[in-house]
Amino acid sequence: MTSIPIIENPDGWKWKELLKRPFDRSADLDKPVREMLENVKKGGNQVVNDYSLRFDGVGFTGQFIEAAKFDDAENELGENLKMAIRDASKNISAFHKVQITDEPSVEIRPGVRCWRKPVAIEKVGLYIPGGSAPLFSTLLMLGIPAQIAGCAEIIVCTPPQKNGTIHPAILFAAKITGIRKLFPVGGVQAIAALAYGTETIPAVYKIFGPGNQWVTQAKKMIQQEGISIDMPAGPSELAVYADETANADFVAADLLSQCEHGPDSQVILVTGNRDFAKQVNHALGIQIEKLPRKSIAEKSLAGSKFFLVPEINTAMNLINTYAPEHLILACRNAELIAAQVRNAGSVFLGNYSAEAAGDYASGTNHTLPTNGYARGYSGVSVDSFMKKISFQQITQEGLQHIGNTVIEMARAEGLQAHAAAIEIRLLKRDA
Amino acid sequence: MTSIPIIENPDGWKWKELLKRPFDRSADLDKPVREMLENVKKGGNQVVNDYSLRFDGVGFTGQFIEAAKFDDAENELGENLKMAIRDASKNISAFHKVQITDEPSVEIRPGVRCWRKPVAIEKVGLYIPGGSAPLFSTLLMLGIPAQIAGCAEIIVCTPPQKNGTIHPAILFAAKITGIRKLFPVGGVQAIAALAYGTETIPAVYKIFGPGNQWVTQAKKMIQQEGISIDMPAGPSELAVYADETANADFVAADLLSQCEHGPDSQVILVTGNRDFAKQVNHALGIQIEKLPRKSIAEKSLAGSKFFLVPEINTAMNLINTYAPEHLILACRNAELIAAQVRNAGSVFLGNYSAEAAGDYASGTNHTLPTNGYARGYSGVSVDSFMKKISFQQITQEGLQHIGNTVIEMARAEGLQAHAAAIEIRLLKRDA
Repeated sequence: MTSIPIIENPDGWKWKELLKRPFDRSADLDKPVREMLENVKKGGNQVVNDYSLRFDGVGFTGQFIEAAKFDDAENELGENLKMAIRDASKNISAFHKVQITDEPSVEIRPGVRCWRKPVAIEKVGLYIPGGSAPLFSTLLMLGIPAQIAGCAEIIVCTPPQKNGTIHPAILFAAKITGIRKLFPVGGVQAIAALAYGTETIPAVYKIFGPGNQWVTQAKKMIQQEGISIDMPAGPSELAVYADETANADFVAADLLSQCEHGPDSQVILVTGNRDFAKQVNHALGIQIEKLPRKSIAEKSLAGSKFFLVPEINTAMNLINTYAPEHLILACRNAELIAAQVRNAGSVFLGNYSAEAAGDYASGTNHTLPTNGYARGYSGVSVDSFMKKISFQQITQEGLQHIGNTVIEMARAEGLQAHAAAIEIRLLKRDA
Repeated sequence: MTSIPIIENPDGWKWKELLKRPFDRSADLDKPVREMLENVKKGGNQVVNDYSLRFDGVGFTGQFIEAAKFDDAENELGENLKMAIRDASKNISAFHKVQITDEPSVEIRPGVRCWRKPVAIEKVGLYIPGGSAPLFSTLLMLGIPAQIAGCAEIIVCTPPQKNGTIHPAILFAAKITGIRKLFPVGGVQAIAALAYGTETIPAVYKIFGPGNQWVTQAKKMIQQEGISIDMPAGPSELAVYADETANADFVAADLLSQCEHGPDSQVILVTGNRDFAKQVNHALGIQIEKLPRKSIAEKSLAGSKFFLVPEINTAMNLINTYAPEHLILACRNAELIAAQVRNAGSVFLGNYSAEAAGDYASGTNHTLPTNGYARGYSGVSVDSFMKKISFQQITQEGLQHIGNTVIEMARAEGLQAHAAAIEIRLLKRDA
């Protein structure tokens, strides 16, 4: 039977080692991925076709999915699933729409006005993994904020199924999101095509979306070449903080929902109550038996840990040190405790805030920082699809107010031409 | 005499080639930088000391600059410069303070509430280059937004001068910004120390600041290891769009102020008026003679170009294709034209908005995306020092509203444990 080890109140200096992610990010992919990127850059669609044949067993004609296929998909898909996708889409829209905020223009001095303007990134690429299941939810999570931001060109790449088609749920999600440029290409070749462009796939300025180690490696590499990426994706993670008001069955179900993602997913339970930890362990043993993906969940649980930490501030410090992608606070005064969260991607408060709700339908984004990146990164949002450009308008009068400051500083930094660009203007007498 | 070639209305398909940045980003630094990073990671301060001795001629004791030195610096520095730094600091604060905006909490359905909360990145490292001049302005541009964001730990690394001290202007800028943890370390060893930590230099979660090719390479590499960075910095750039209402002497002065940064800086002038281009060329020839950094400016001008583009929309398209770090719009209706800017770091409107003003004192940030990164990146702002964490609170009633949607979607993606985490809650009957 499954039983996760309970680690009792470890000393702070041991945390880092104890909280290490179980997977090893190897560097062996460097060379093969670099080579694939280079080949697509040089050879375009022909090379994409070769790789697609080799890795997905399906060639690439260079064409995007034709319009009729989207309609076919809609007809093919069950009503309940369509309703669910529409419903989720509405919620995701509602949450992301409020993310466009305005910033006032600032009058620094009379005649010196500065402001920032949010501008959509013109061309973005969304990578939707195929693999064992069609991740149409990820298409919603990336496509909806891209549309709200107003990106002019949104290109989707997703690997074809064995039979060469795209799963209808992906096409339907694309359709209701208003995305029509979808290429049946996956893997490193898709990232390369989006980065460099091919005869038919447009080059984009930023690439989003999760993927396997190869895809992630490709994204990291093209990031070094001037294309930006959402974030480096790693295996999924969940930390739960629970006290005795939590429900052990619920917590076990949440831990398992995270564990079924992949054998390198990690879950962590932090609690002050030993009995509760035992109850969760017991519930895990029962619930895991019913899961179709039991063997994956078992492997993932093997790398997971329970922490017994009686003092709540210490518990929150430990969680902040871990910086989980997802964090459930199943405890008394969850909202008060939430104020102590410094490092996490997405936080779920209370017994009914199942993490799975945020994966699909509550409205929040599920593309979140893993592997401790939550210390310095946000999850994907409308912000991720925009940049902010600074503007300033200085009048002749305005320059009188700040000109000497500029001259003084420029000279002290040894940049005389900077000073001169101000002086020549200050000396100017109007006719 | 200097004369920049005037390229007449080039076809769109030629733009990409014509707008190529003049420098070559070589990959030869990969190996030596990797080695230095690894050595610091293993050897800590001892290795930092070795590298500092070798590259800067000054050892590293492991200590940060003691408090008394900041006071000494303040006494040592001229009053005018201190006044200027204080003045700039006030303006930079004023512009960056408005960047903290609130986002409403959204009630997706009754009982389903979602929101995001901006949280400061706890530990940040600021790299302030030394080199030919003390870049105290960069300390203001990074330190002030870090303080406004509320970063708990702000660590500065900056290379010592030949005599082992830090320039008093840097210490004074640190002091008035409220930063006291300043280590006299530069180069790759500084980035490594900030990334991995040493016996005395704390590891941080995000590293900011410009630097030479070595420093930039180090930042890119540590970014792949889970530490985030502001952006990959490249040589500085300026594009000017000017019509006949512009002042050729001003424009020449602006171009030169950009060119003096380094031999690989690039400037571009786009105008519909051939005579104006000639006037600027003439003014450049006169003004460059007076510059102490003339030889640098000359080299930089050699890689620069003027474009003669009569049609203004075409001109703006060309500029958007280039995606300059800085853009001056010295033309009629500059504010109207500004609406067409899609890719740029910072935009300066009108004849008196000298680019140098934004480098120092108008309040906007001068840490901006170069090398075309403006297509997908923003400049540094308070946002750069924060991340946004998602929160959600779902009640038992709320889960009734969205539960079936989650279950339906999770099953379609083959994730039964996700569905189960909702089902177990929906089945729960309250006592």
